Formats: sequence, structure tokens, C-alpha cells
Amino acid sequence: MGAILHVCITCRAGLPLVEGEPCAGARVHAALAALNVPAGVTVRPVECLSACKHGASIALSGPGRWSYIYGPVSEADAAVILDGAAAYAGTQDGIVPWRERPALFRKNVIARLPALEAT
Amino acid sequence: MGAILHVCITCRAGLPLVEGEPCAGARVHAALAALNVPAGVTVRPVECLSACKHGASIALSGPGRWSYIYGPVSEADAAVILDGAAAYAGTQDGIVPWRERPALFRKNVIARLPALEAT
Repeated sequence: MGAILHVCITCRAGLPLVEGEPCAGARVHAALAALNVPAGVTVRPVECLSACKHGASIALSGPGRWSYIYGPVSEADAAVILDGAAAYAGTQDGIVPWRERPALFRKNVIARLPALEAT
Repeated sequence: MGAILHVCITCRAGLPLVEGEPCAGARVHAALAALNVPAGVTVRPVECLSACKHGASIALSGPGRWSYIYGPVSEADAAVILDGAAAYAGTQDGIVPWRERPALFRKNVIARLPALEAT
């Protein structure tokens, strides 16, 4: 299993839901789905990452890797998100060198979490 | 492997570091270590959960379970944190029924993350 890019598809990003219009998280997911997903990355929709104050939010995780949760992000960030996900997928431990992380990921990290296997 | 209670031991909780005094995260870890840790829970110190704006922070994770990151917490919350960790350890998927979660966990969730195995 490579890297999983979790995308919260229920995030309203603090805005009222407008009937017939996709919420902020669903728009991010649609924008990602319209692009070529890098090798080793799987995009997985998820209902609520409980990071509503910082949404729309996404997360990266993978076996043996640190997980990272990012937000706010928008559909305009889709290409950058996939670049960052590709860099993450290219690591063994999930830790991308600071300078190789997209500015979006450097600035908008909500939290990170060690791998279960970490010692 | 049961539940892992990750404790950020480097968190300053937005305060300046005072020489010779433990930082906020280290105080939380010390308070937890002074109590009886529930069966099925392992306390694991970690250097930075990247949730500095909401620190001190802790996280719960376990195989096949949703992970949760909480903050701010303080050393005064140690007993409540262990109660919440015990409830988490007692689940298969990491999702403790809302009313059975400590108020601290209901109010101070920073983010959650699906298990890698989630579909």
C-alpha cells in the first residue's frame, strides 16, 4: 500500500450549505479527481476529518509513515496537493524534507501523527 | 497492539520556554506517567505533533482504528485523558459513542484520521 490522500468531502469550511451546490470539501475532491493522480497515491473520500475549524481539510497517511493533516485547502490547490502527495509517497517514513514541501503544506499543517510502528 | 496515547513532550503551548522548567507538553506527560495507565493503553512520548497552535496536544491511535488528535490539554486533565484513552482502547474502530467521550475530547478535538484499512 502506498500513500492515501484522504479528502474530507463533507466540509463546509464554515460556510452555510447552499442547496444544489457542492460543499467546499466536495469541490476539493472533484478538483483532485479531475487531475492525474501520481503513482503511489490513492485518493480516498472521507466523511469529516473533525478539522472543521480549519477546513476544507485533507490528510496523508501510509503504512510505516507519519500522517499529516492539512487545512484550509481549496479546489484551487488541487495540483499543489497532488505534488505534495507525490513527494510524501516517495518517502519511507512520510517526512518530506522541509524545503521540498509545497508552501501550502508548510503553512497549513493542522497536526501530524506518528506511525503505529514508531518507537 | 492496543491503543497508543501519543503525548507531545515538546509543546510550549504558545508560551516562552523558562530555563529549568518543563514545557507544557512535558508536564502533561509527567502527570500521565504518575497515574495508573489503563489496560490496553500505551503512553508514548513524541516530539511535536505539529499542532502547536492548539497545544499541549495528545493523540490516540491503534491498529484498525480511527486516530484522534486533541488539544489544548494540560496536566490537570491527566485523569480525564486516561479515562478517554481507556474508552478508546475498548473499541474496535476507535469511535467511542459521543456521550461516552469525556467533555474534554468532545470539545477539544483538533482532527481525526481514518485507519489505513478503512474503505
